[in-house]
Parts: sequence; C-alpha cells; structure tokens
Amino acid sequence: MSDTASNQMWGGRFAAGPDAIMEAINASIGFDRRLAAQDIAGSRAHAAMLAACGILTDSDAEAIREGLLTVLSEIERGDFAFSTALEDIHMNVESRLRELIGEPAGRLHTARSRNDQVATDFRLWVREQCDAVDAGLEALIRALLAQAEAGADWVMPGFTHLQTAQPVTWGHHMLAYVEMFARDRARFADARRRMNESPLGAAALAGTSFPIDRQMTAQALGFDRPMANSLDAVSDRDFALEFLAAASICAMHLSRMAEELVIWSSAQFRFVALSDRFSTGSSIMPQKKNPDAAELIRAKIGRIFGANVTLMTVMKGLPLAYSKDMQEDKEPVFDAADSLMLALAAMTGMVGDMTANRAALAAAAGSGFSTATDLADWLVRALDMPFRQAHHVTGALVKAAEDKGCDLDGLTLDEMRAVHDGITDAVFGVLGVDNSVASRTSLGGTAPANVRAQIDAWKERLG
Amino acid sequence: MSDTASNQMWGGRFAAGPDAIMEAINASIGFDRRLAAQDIAGSRAHAAMLAACGILTDSDAEAIREGLLTVLSEIERGDFAFSTALEDIHMNVESRLRELIGEPAGRLHTARSRNDQVATDFRLWVREQCDAVDAGLEALIRALLAQAEAGADWVMPGFTHLQTAQPVTWGHHMLAYVEMFARDRARFADARRRMNESPLGAAALAGTSFPIDRQMTAQALGFDRPMANSLDAVSDRDFALEFLAAASICAMHLSRMAEELVIWSSAQFRFVALSDRFSTGSSIMPQKKNPDAAELIRAKIGRIFGANVTLMTVMKGLPLAYSKDMQEDKEPVFDAADSLMLALAAMTGMVGDMTANRAALAAAAGSGFSTATDLADWLVRALDMPFRQAHHVTGALVKAAEDKGCDLDGLTLDEMRAVHDGITDAVFGVLGVDNSVASRTSLGGTAPANVRAQIDAWKERLG
Amino acid sequence: MSDTASNQMWGGRFAAGPDAIMEAINASIGFDRRLAAQDIAGSRAHAAMLAACGILTDSDAEAIREGLLTVLSEIERGDFAFSTALEDIHMNVESRLRELIGEPAGRLHTARSRNDQVATDFRLWVREQCDAVDAGLEALIRALLAQAEAGADWVMPGFTHLQTAQPVTWGHHMLAYVEMFARDRARFADARRRMNESPLGAAALAGTSFPIDRQMTAQALGFDRPMANSLDAVSDRDFALEFLAAASICAMHLSRMAEELVIWSSAQFRFVALSDRFSTGSSIMPQKKNPDAAELIRAKIGRIFGANVTLMTVMKGLPLAYSKDMQEDKEPVFDAADSLMLALAAMTGMVGDMTANRAALAAAAGSGFSTATDLADWLVRALDMPFRQAHHVTGALVKAAEDKGCDLDGLTLDEMRAVHDGITDAVFGVLGVDNSVASRTSLGGTAPANVRAQIDAWKERLG
Amino acid sequence: MSDTASNQMWGGRFAAGPDAIMEAINASIGFDRRLAAQDIAGSRAHAAMLAACGILTDSDAEAIREGLLTVLSEIERGDFAFSTALEDIHMNVESRLRELIGEPAGRLHTARSRNDQVATDFRLWVREQCDAVDAGLEALIRALLAQAEAGADWVMPGFTHLQTAQPVTWGHHMLAYVEMFARDRARFADARRRMNESPLGAAALAGTSFPIDRQMTAQALGFDRPMANSLDAVSDRDFALEFLAAASICAMHLSRMAEELVIWSSAQFRFVALSDRFSTGSSIMPQKKNPDAAELIRAKIGRIFGANVTLMTVMKGLPLAYSKDMQEDKEPVFDAADSLMLALAAMTGMVGDMTANRAALAAAAGSGFSTATDLADWLVRALDMPFRQAHHVTGALVKAAEDKGCDLDGLTLDEMRAVHDGITDAVFGVLGVDNSVASRTSLGGTAPANVRAQIDAWKERLG
Repeated sequence: MSDTASNQMWGGRFAAGPDAIMEAINASIGFDRRLAAQDIAGSRAHAAMLAACGILTDSDAEAIREGLLTVLSEIERGDFAFSTALEDIHMNVESRLRELIGEPAGRLHTARSRNDQVATDFRLWVREQCDAVDAGLEALIRALLAQAEAGADWVMPGFTHLQTAQPVTWGHHMLAYVEMFARDRARFADARRRMNESPLGAAALAGTSFPIDRQMTAQALGFDRPMANSLDAVSDRDFALEFLAAASICAMHLSRMAEELVIWSSAQFRFVALSDRFSTGSSIMPQKKNPDAAELIRAKIGRIFGANVTLMTVMKGLPLAYSKDMQEDKEPVFDAADSLMLALAAMTGMVGDMTANRAALAAAAGSGFSTATDLADWLVRALDMPFRQAHHVTGALVKAAEDKGCDLDGLTLDEMRAVHDGITDAVFGVLGVDNSVASRTSLGGTAPANVRAQIDAWKERLG
Repeated sequence: MSDTASNQMWGGRFAAGPDAIMEAINASIGFDRRLAAQDIAGSRAHAAMLAACGILTDSDAEAIREGLLTVLSEIERGDFAFSTALEDIHMNVESRLRELIGEPAGRLHTARSRNDQVATDFRLWVREQCDAVDAGLEALIRALLAQAEAGADWVMPGFTHLQTAQPVTWGHHMLAYVEMFARDRARFADARRRMNESPLGAAALAGTSFPIDRQMTAQALGFDRPMANSLDAVSDRDFALEFLAAASICAMHLSRMAEELVIWSSAQFRFVALSDRFSTGSSIMPQKKNPDAAELIRAKIGRIFGANVTLMTVMKGLPLAYSKDMQEDKEPVFDAADSLMLALAAMTGMVGDMTANRAALAAAAGSGFSTATDLADWLVRALDMPFRQAHHVTGALVKAAEDKGCDLDGLTLDEMRAVHDGITDAVFGVLGVDNSVASRTSLGGTAPANVRAQIDAWKERLG
Repeated sequence: MSDTASNQMWGGRFAAGPDAIMEAINASIGFDRRLAAQDIAGSRAHAAMLAACGILTDSDAEAIREGLLTVLSEIERGDFAFSTALEDIHMNVESRLRELIGEPAGRLHTARSRNDQVATDFRLWVREQCDAVDAGLEALIRALLAQAEAGADWVMPGFTHLQTAQPVTWGHHMLAYVEMFARDRARFADARRRMNESPLGAAALAGTSFPIDRQMTAQALGFDRPMANSLDAVSDRDFALEFLAAASICAMHLSRMAEELVIWSSAQFRFVALSDRFSTGSSIMPQKKNPDAAELIRAKIGRIFGANVTLMTVMKGLPLAYSKDMQEDKEPVFDAADSLMLALAAMTGMVGDMTANRAALAAAAGSGFSTATDLADWLVRALDMPFRQAHHVTGALVKAAEDKGCDLDGLTLDEMRAVHDGITDAVFGVLGVDNSVASRTSLGGTAPANVRAQIDAWKERLG
Repeated sequence: MSDTASNQMWGGRFAAGPDAIMEAINASIGFDRRLAAQDIAGSRAHAAMLAACGILTDSDAEAIREGLLTVLSEIERGDFAFSTALEDIHMNVESRLRELIGEPAGRLHTARSRNDQVATDFRLWVREQCDAVDAGLEALIRALLAQAEAGADWVMPGFTHLQTAQPVTWGHHMLAYVEMFARDRARFADARRRMNESPLGAAALAGTSFPIDRQMTAQALGFDRPMANSLDAVSDRDFALEFLAAASICAMHLSRMAEELVIWSSAQFRFVALSDRFSTGSSIMPQKKNPDAAELIRAKIGRIFGANVTLMTVMKGLPLAYSKDMQEDKEPVFDAADSLMLALAAMTGMVGDMTANRAALAAAAGSGFSTATDLADWLVRALDMPFRQAHHVTGALVKAAEDKGCDLDGLTLDEMRAVHDGITDAVFGVLGVDNSVASRTSLGGTAPANVRAQIDAWKERLG
C-alpha cells in the first residue's frame, strides 16, 4: 500500500481531528449503558436517603425518584437517545432527568461523585452476574445428575494420558464434573459475599461533610454494609478481578468437558452422540455431526481468561485513588460474563441432549487389560503379596494374555498358575469390568452403589 | 553463527541422546523435592490407616512410619541423595525406605497410586502457603496500622489522575490498604477452606477395593473431609488456580502501593523517605536513595500473574483423569508463592521503616484549590443551592483566586460576594485543609476521628 | 436473590431454548461482517480466476463480479440486511448474490470452501491493519521528531528508579521513543511480509481437483504467493498472533510514554502541560487538567495483550485442520487493532499538542548532584584515577557539597582540593548541566549535536 | 494452624530480618550467573576498545583481558565462588578480577555502567538462544521431512472438528507442520536481526564524554551496529519480548502437534505408535504406552506464554530509563528458552522415532463417506452442475449409501442414476481415497506428486 493510501486510511479513521479522537477514547457510553438499571437504582436509593437525612426535600426526592423511573422505562423500551457528548451513563441519565423534572435534578448529585456512583453501579452489575452464573451452574449440575442417574452403572474406560487405565462408571464420570461445578458455585458465592458492600457515599474519595446515612443506601441496594474506607471504595476493582478469576476457573472446567465431548464424538471413539441442536451438519455429508457447540465452549476459556489478563494488567501499578485507566474495567467483565453465561447454557443444553453409546463405552472399558489393577489388588489381598511384587506378577500375566491374544479373563487357571502357583480360581471374581467397578466401594470410588448414593445426596442438597 | 556451530550448541545441550532428553523433560525430582515433608506426612498417615483397617500388619506399619521419619530427617539434614533416574519425590522416598526397612516398604503403596499421592502432597503444600501468606498479610496490616496511627490526622493530597483532588489524611490512606489486604486474607482463607479436602484414597482414579478408611487419613492430615469423587480428586487443580488467583489480586494491591512509594520517593514529591535498608544508594551520589525494594515488589505481579497464566493454559482442555501435562502444575505455584512471600516481607519491612514527610504532605495537600469541593458543599448546605449550580459558582471563585494568585482562603469576603452575594464569612470555616478533612465524618470518610475509630476497630479485630 | 428470581434471569436470557442458545454461540455475523469488503474482494478474484481457467463461463463470472459489487455498495451504504440465520458473512453475501443474479451465484463456491475463504478474508483484514498501524506509527514518530527538534538542547533529568541520575536533553528523550516506535514499525512490516501469502484455493483442507490457478488469485489480492500447503493454509492463525504480539509490544511502549506523561503532568513534576483537547477538567476546579487520554492509552496494553492471551489460549492444543474454536480468532484481533489505532491517534495528538515546561525541566536537571558522574569521569580522565577510586572521591565531594548546602559547582576549588589535592580549576568545566549534556558526544549520547544529527537522519529516512 | 505457628513460619522464613529480606529480593546472582560468558565477552571487548581509544594503557587492557579469561575458566570449571553479597554477575566477576590482577581491574568500568553492561549481556544471551532455537527447529523440520518422505502417499483422514472430512496424505500432514515451523524459524531470524545492535557505550543512560568507539565493541561482539540512542539502549526490553512472542507462537504449534500425537496414540485411534524412549509404561500393564513426552510438550506453551505475560506485565508503564523492575526480565526468558529447547528436542526425538500405522490410517481415511466432496466436484465438472446443486445431489447419494450400509463406491451405477440420471460410470474414478488424494493436484494440494515435490524443495532449501 502506498504511503498516500495508508495515510488516507489513517486519516480517514480520525479525519475529524483531535476532538473526534478524544471523544472516541474518552466516552464510555458505548458500553456503560449496560449499567443503566443499576445506575438508576443507585440514584433512587441515594435520593431517598438524602430526603430522609434532611439534605433534600421530600418533594424534590419524590420528583427525582419518579423521574428516574421514567428514564428507566424509556431505556427499557429503547426510546432513550444516548449521547456520546454526555460521555457516560451517569450524565446521560441525569441530563434526561433534568429535561423531565427541571431544577431538582441538579440536587441529586449532592454528597456523591461519579467515582462512588460508578463503583456502586458496577458492583451491583457484577453481583447480579454472580447470581445468574450460579443459576446457570445449578442448571448444568442438574443436567449432569440426570446423565449420571441414567448411567450410574454403565462401564466406560477411565483414562490417564488418554490411555485406558481402569474401568469407571458413566455416572461417576458425570459426578466428577458435578463436584467441579459445585466448587465453582462456591467460588462465585464467596466472591458475591465479599463484594457485597456499598461504595455509595464515599463521594470523590474522601467521604463527605453532608450528614448522609450510608447504611440506608446500602440496605436499599441489598448490600450487607457500607465499605469502611472511602479511598478504598473508589479505588479498588478486586471484586471484578475475583469474579473474573472464578469465571476463568469455571471456564477451565468447561473446556475440559468440552474437549472430552469433542473427542468422544469422533468416529474413532463414538462414546456419545450429540443432538442435532448442538452440532452442525454438512450439506454434503449428511451423516456428519460437527460438535460446534463443544468447540466454541472450549474456546471461551481464551476469551474469559483474556479478560482477566486485561483487567489485571490495567490495574497493575495504579496509584490511588481513581485513575481514568479504570474506565477500562467494564468491557472485559461484560464480555467474560456474557461468554460464561452462553457457554454454561450451551453446555447444559448439550449435556441434557446427548446420548451415551453404552455399548461402545463398555467395549472400550473392557479392552486394554483394564482390570490389571484389580488383579494386582487381588494378589495383595488374597495372597498377602507386597504391592510392588503383585504388580510384577500382574505384568507377567498381562504378557501371557497378550501373547495368547486374549484379555485377562481369557487365561485359564493353569496358565495363570504357570506364572504364580498361589493363584486360585477366586481370581476370576475380579477380572470382569463389572466386577471391577462394583468392587471400588471406597469412599468416593466408582462403584455404582456409591454413585447412586452421591446422586441422592446431590439431589437432596439441590432441593 | 554457522550451521555447524549452532548445531553443536543444539547437539551439545542434548548430546546424550533421546534418553537424556526424555529424562530432562520427564523427571520432576528437580522441583517436587519441595514436597518431601508433605509426601512423608501423607505416607505416614496412609500406613497408619492401612494398619488400622487390617490391610497392613501393625509391625509393618510401624517400620514404615519410623523409616519415613528417618528419610525425612535425612532430607532435612541435606544428607539425602536425590536421584533423577527415580523421577520424582515419591519414588525417591520409597526407594530409600526400601533400603532402610526392606520388604515392608513394598507394601506401603497398597490402595493408593501416585495420582492421589501427588494430589495430596500438593494440596498440603498449597494449604501451608495459605497459612504463611495469611501471616505475612497480617504482619503487613500491622505495619500499616502503625503508620496510620502515627499520622491519623496528617493531611496529604488525595489524588485522582495523579492530580490533587481533595485533602485526605495519611492515616486514611494507610487504612485503604488495610482494607485491601484484609480482603486478600479473606480470599486466601476461602481458598484454604475449599481446598481442605483429602484426595488420598482416590487411588489411580477409580477408588479401590481395599477396605480403607479415608476419613482417618483425612483427619490425620488436617483435612476437613475426603473428596467425594475419586476422578475429580486426581484430575482437578482448581485449588492451585484459586491460590494463584488470590495471589495475583494481592500482588496487584502490592503493585499499587509500590508504585505510590516509588513516586512518593521522587525528588519532586518527597512524600516519604524510605529507610536505607530497603533502598540502594550510589557509590557516587551518596544522597541518592533508589527505591529498589518497591520497584521489585511492583514487578512481582508479573511473575505471580504469569504463573496463573501458565497453569490456566496448561489445564485448558485436558480430558480426565490424569494427564502428564499436570506435572507442570508445581513450579509456577512454587515460584508464585515464593515471590508473594518475599514481596510481602519486603513491603512489611519498608512500611515499618519509612518516614512520612509531614510538611511536604501538608504543603501539597493545601495547594491546587483542593478545598473547592468543600466550598461547593458549603454553598449547597448553607445557601440551599442545587449541587450543579454550586459547582458553577465555585468554579468562578477558583478562577478569581487564580487570577489574584492566591488560594481560596486568600480571597476576601467582598471578592467572594462579587461572585455570589449570598456568601457569608461562615465560608472560611470550610476552606482550610484541616477543616476539610475534619468535616468528612461520613461513615468511611477521611476525618481523623473516623481514622482513629477504624484503627481501634482493626486492632480489636487482630487481637 | 431467590432461586426463582435467579432462575428467571437465567431462563430469561435463554428463554427461547436450545435453538436460541445454539444460534447465539454459533453465529459469527455479529462480528465477521467487518470482513465484508475482504470477502467480496476474495470472491471477485476467485470468480475471475475460475473463468480464466475455464471452470466458469465468462458471462457467469461477469454476473458474479458485478453482483458482488452491488452487494458491497449495499453494505457500504448501510442498506444490507444481515441475517443471523445465515450465520456468517460468507453466507450472507452469497445469499444476497443469489437474489440479485440467480443461478450463477451457486457456481461461485466451486473449488473453494469456507475454510480457505475465511482464512483469506482474515489475512487481508489483518494485512490492512498492518498498513494502518504503520501509518499511525509514522505520524507519531513525526510528532516526536517535532518535539525533539524544538527542544534538542533543553536539559532535563535523566531518571533511573525515578530518581535523578544524569542530565539529558528533551530531544534525546523524545528520540528514545522514536527508536522504539521505529522498531515497532519494523515488527509490523515483518509480520505483514510473512502473512502475505494466499490461502485461497486450499479449499476445505486438501486442495482441489479443479484446474485452478492460485497464483492468479494471489496476485489479484496483492499476496506475494499462494501458501504452499493446503492443510497449513486453513489451520494456522500464527499471522494473527504475530500481529497481536507486535501490537502488544507497541502498546507496552505506549504505556511507558503514557506513564511518563501522567507523572510529568502532576503538580509535583510540572514537566509538561497537556493541551485541553487531550485532558479533561473539573467543573469545580478550573485549573485542574486530568491527563485522561494518557491514562486511557496506558490502559490499552491490558486490552491488547488480553487479546493476545485470548487467541493464544484458543489455539493451544487444537488438532488440525479447522476446528470451530478458531471462529473465536476475529473479535480479539478486531478489538486489539481498534484499541491500538485509537491509542496511536491519541498519543500522536497529545505529543503534537503538549508543551514542555523548559524551566521546570532545567531546574530539575540541575538538582540532586546530577553531574556527579561527570565529575568522576573528569577525575579519571584528568588525573588518571581508576574509575572505582574516582567514584569514591566524587562521593566525598558530594558529601561536602551536601554539608555546605550547595550543589557541586558551589564548592570552591580549595574545598575540593581538601578532598583530593590533584583537582584543578579545569574541573568547573564539567559541572554545569549544559556542560554535562554537551560532553556526552559518544555515539548515541545525549549531546545536542548528536540529537540534531539524529533528527536529521530520521527526517531523511522518513522522506 | 495457630497464629503462633503461622507466625513462626513467617518469621522463620525471614528470621534474619530486614537485611536478609532485602538481599533475597535484591540480589540477582542466583540467576544472572547464566550471563557469565556474555558478561566476560562484553568486558573483554570493552577493555580492548578502551585501549585502542587511548583510555586505558595496553598493558592494563591486556591484564584485564587475560584476567577475565581466567575468571571464565574458573566459572566453567565450577571453581568460582559466587557471592550473594556482591549482588550480581557483574560485581562478582569484577571483584574476582581485582583479586587476580589488582588495581587495573578498577579501570575496566570506565565509560560504561551496569545499565549498558547488563543490556549487552542479555542481548548476547538471547541472540544465542535464537541460534539454538533455529538449529532445534531445523532438526525438527528434518525429522518431519523424513516422516513425510516415508509416507508421501499414505492416505489418512483429514479432519475438521475432529470429524473425518476428506482424505489427505500422511506426507501432506507432516508438511503442514514443516510450513509452521519454518515460519517460526523466520520469526526468530527477524527477532535476532532486530535485536542485533549493541547497547554497550550507552553508559548509565546518557552516553559518555570519553572518546569511546562503539563501532569497535559492536563489531567485536558480532553486533551489526551500536544502538542509536543511549536512553533507549538501557531502557527497552522489546527484544526479549519479541523472543518470547516468537517462542510462544512456536510453542502453540508444538502444542497442536503434541495434541495430535496424544489423540493418535489412543487405543481408539491407533494412528501412530510412539517409541518406548518417549513414552512411559506401566509396571502392571506392559502393553500400555503413555505419551508422556507429548503431553509435557503440550504443556510447555503454558510456561512459555506465562513468561511472555510475566515480562509484558513487568514492563507495563515503567518510566524511562532503568527501573529495578527490569531485573525481573531474565528469569522468564531463561525459563522459556530452556522449555522451548527441551520441547523441540523431545518433539524431534518423538517424530524421528514414531511409527505411523499405515493400515489404521487408510481404514479411517476410507470411512465416513470421505470422498463425498470428490463426488460433488465430479458432478460440477462432468455434468456442469452448479456447486450448490451438486452438494444437494451428493447428499442424496450419501443417504442412499448409508441406507444400503455401504460406502459411496458400494452403490451401483443404477442406484446412483436413481438419484440423478446424468451420472455415468466415470464417477467411479473419483470415489476411492487413493483416487481422491491423487486428484488434489492444485498448488499446495495433498496429491502425492505435490507432496514429493514439496519434500524435494524443502531438502534443497535446507541443503
């Protein structure tokens, strides 16, 4: 591209000059309009408190609170004309309020500042996301429990290194994810509890000399208490980072399950069939089912953790109190929350719809000498052999089976006794995959009885 | 560099061929030796449980438990010869145990696997770090409280955009960090509580058919309970990621305070003097004090958050249960924990030693019309002016003062009344910085009385 | 929030059920519409080639090429109705083309696939961004050169650890950034060159049996050559990652300069005054100028490097060839490119507008014994003192000056000779800051003569 | 843990007090000793230059240069006692030099500073890594070419979404990685070229008044030229970030190939058998081969990209020139370089040793109607059917084959003509997988003839 052309491109994008550039980099209304409901809720609580404390007349407060409801309904109806010149959601709302109710609008901002206002709005928004994610996780857990219940005793390979290691049950595998997503819920609950303090009333950074009642606004907005230090209240964004951290870990769990679904859907594995609703076909190969939703869920970890990196980098090394850098806090959180909610919904739908291929799972579970550990454990238990020696003997038996071209239970007792003459025919009781999983009754083990008990416990817990 | 030379370099590094390469990439003993104490504690608990459950004889269990203590003391004394050929800490310990006690050593590994063993070791290690970090944070908070107490009423500029906005107190600024680090403590406490479940007994991935008692080992190791699903127990590393997330947020807070100390130490600010112990001089400019410790603390966020990225990336998309990728979980956590502990220690030392330059703080606090907000609030309060109008009037008064070359309290009442004739001489009561901070008595505000109450509350809480 | 409420929220968001969820996660038209011009350019080149190779009739090709121009103009005019049901830009364009020209539209997709099509579109888009960024960097460099030229010999402090170390010139400091941004240009140029190969004709992944001419389409689209391996062509996104890496490094440079501008704008430094156009004021403190643009530029590194993390995480561990995960490649690149362009424009504007405070710079440059190094070097040169000893003597002289309360040139010759009797009055020739910077004539040193020569060289280079 | 215990832990770690903490956080000799050879090379070049410029006597320079060689050999022999009190490699070397040669050692540091010294050392080190990585990549490419040559015409499935899409050749798949790793080489080459400028002589930050010859030292150290701006020379670390970016992209490529090897090694795929040397077995399941090396390679992207995040975060927002934060630049680069070299060596070894399972590849390639695209293309070509219609007809034929329970070439001509009566028996020429791949002769397509030509071209290029 010639210099002229590229300069035109450059010029074109910012042809309107410095003012256009500054507006483009400075205005936040393009994204912080998502905080409209929170902003209005905060302002209504603030107005009521100002009146209760005698800072505002009751009639002014009432006019403000009514006017704000009108603004909210305009926004919800899509009738609101957002203005970039007014920079942000706070000024857009206040400006419209002034049009609606006149002079009292100018009294609303008493004893607060945009610094505590935006901190309040954003906390409220993130808090709601915690609730939404919690509900999304609960729905996913219920879908996993339904799968677990259907296949509590279906055998499948338990993998290490994507190599068959030991048989497990389908229900047990589903429950492993239940545990992970339940911990994710707990992380969001902790984050929600910790962030649920009100910054409102911290004003610009130092508090105010007006006789305000921060307990009252805190309570009105569902916060547990006001934040204890005004500088901290307007300066920190750790609550958003904690949300992003919890979201990232949850996305990690989702990425692992998604990877499994992609692999399990392959023609080589055929462990599950995804529904048409969460896969795409090919106009030309009608039998083909691409696990698109699983792949997209797998990818979301990039986006969500990328948001975490973004905000962590933004906050690095900022002196107190408010710096404009912190305006870059919202978009990554918005995007991460949306991505996580979408990934949860898609995963819940996919898990609800998918069909395990019980026969293929069982066939895979039984191959690869997957009960070798059971055999070794039997040697320890029945013959009092030290563990390390039992492993050695088992290795020899597997070798014998491999040479004969059969699985372990295809060896005769004589063939086994040729390897170790202490073996009795009781050994056959541990060699089948069903025997294997049934025997794993240790707490947390894969035995179907355990799995069913866990499912019951989870259902009880979820109510 | 010629091809020959670079090939030699390449060749040189791995001249020993495939075996050397595989050993280099595969062995973990170079780093997981840090888990020696945890590994031995886990094995001792396991042996005691096996005996209690009748899986091991009491005498074997006793020999194992005693032998393990010997191994531990050898390691602690530095007398232990770690072997890369034995790959990891588990095999190094067991191999030495066999040398010490013979055959019973081969019975220790009954009903467990390296998969649940390493998960147990690592959880124990991370749990200890939570405690260490908690103690480090407490020490830092105490140092900050001491600073806050000394200067509860010293005025200093409260900045937004690194521009003077309103005066605050030194004590209030210190307490802002107390709040942040207290939330950090809570995050580590939550992480610790959530991770405090025992994976031991999950065995390879499916549980075991031996009649083990996982409650017993869990209790012996200080865990709250056994993990409920064996696949989950050996597969997940969310506890390490949660530790890294909490560490990253804490490092973010440290980076902000460090940045402030660097800026405050500059010749232009002179807000604080760091002690010689945490700064370095110049052989040639004896008056120079470089805030090296603050800069290094500021940098640690890179390292700690880098570790978070490392482990998150490693875990992305791994199918269950154990994959060898997960061997890469330890080094980032080790490095992050060490970095955080060091940063906390250095920050605690620096805060303990530093001297605020009270005069410079006060001078800066009083400049830049920093009480303009107080004036505006007075206009609202005393003259019932709407907030937005009060701001307008204040702007005109600041302009008048600027033109006159004085600060706001340098204007005469007449000069003020020329701008707005409702102003009375009561206005002078709010114009000084001391008046300003004293008036910010709203909950969480910067008033010295508030600060002192907060300090008392914190001291009470810390005990 | 009650379960009911949160479930409604959850339900509300995806009330329309599985189809809505799948459409939401699967469709890309919401963002890939930005590739419309590239998509149409690629299709026009493809159609022309198909005709030239006899795969399409000339009249069909002509109809297609004309029809595509119509579609493009509809899109550019904002008259195009994008459809989410049609999923992506490719199907939206082709579908509209069919409406416009009928049956020949169905022949356009011969010998290609969406896999090579989207790879081509995206490469073209990223290539254009390289050109735009290059133009943006050139503009910034020119702004820096203008500043350097204005103050080629203005002295200012050169900092280490934000402590005055040695005097440098304003011009030299500006030129340091010129060097950095020039290397950034080179990185984008290398990335552009490397990515400038055509994937078109790789088809789904294996190439095609149609007798196509990939050289022809490559040439028509300004690519240097076709990519040599069809699997690679549709599988890799390293070109996007290389763009993001270059953008991240450039953003790092911008963040450093932005940090300096924020610090330099503080009341304590007063090294520069930013223009009103790139700062914001306060309605209440008219003298206040917040360096908003600088702060926002400083923050952009978070966003840009976050995008890098996003895509790197997405690509980790994807098997060949195309996986749907790769649909997540575009949004981070779009966002990073937009952010970088905006940051460059704002920085260019700010640098162009800002005013260095020459007096404040000079005053700061002369304080803090900043010529101590010059004195030590003089001792080495004039008295043949070993460097380490010269440092020792200089330290003593600084101490003497500090005790006397003056700078180094405030000491009398006698006072100096009391420290070391070899000192002569020639020493005064090196003590002033102007002398100091004038003496640093080594290649790349800060001497004004050097600075002017460098400016000339850069202007020559830029043309 | 009780407060006492955790305080002891805290106390224990830093019991020695502030000095121990400061030494722990400040000293770099624990890691920068890896720069010993580079540091000594730089000092030797500097001494020779000082002598040539008349700043040092020839005999002093000679003593220094000889002494430095002695120090180097002591270090290489492991005879050197590194001292933490001396902080870094520079002071360790100089201090030992003084012991060896006395007073002239004190003259070595004339006209330089630790700032330009460490920048020089580190550039030299990173430059060497570029060469080493280049050699490692070349070796990997050669291993891939050998695999490609062995199986230039072996058919295997080409996947999209891990679903069979079209047949490709083994050779073609190997060559896709050759392309990727060749671009990686080019990225390292560009980075090397860009970083190959000498910071030496920039001194602390401003250059020097000594009449040094920077061209001479640049040349002696193999640099292309001296850096043009002394502030830039000591301030920037973009060269290290560019190395890390190239390493990250290369690690991304490695992670993809590693993922394929893990999947291909599964019992379900059996596409390849890895050698015993790069897998681990099970003491109990002798047939099991865990792809440990592949998994560890897959994980290294976490570590390498984590290092990139670390350094990017460290550098964010640092004012010029040198800040101590920058001491944190080395360890991430060391770790990333080591990790990448190890991953390359392991991948080269694995690729060299692995055995493709030709039969399993062919069987998989032929399943799933993988030649449906070929059929559709034939319809376009032979019957002049529009592409979109051809897809529709092919779908119907696949459906017919699926209903009959055969693959496409199992349909009779009559059965085909029942779907579309224009079909002739020429259609059978495109239905086999061998026919399919042989027909993909477009530039970059998978046809064996193409593959062989590409292999020849690469061998020619590599020499």
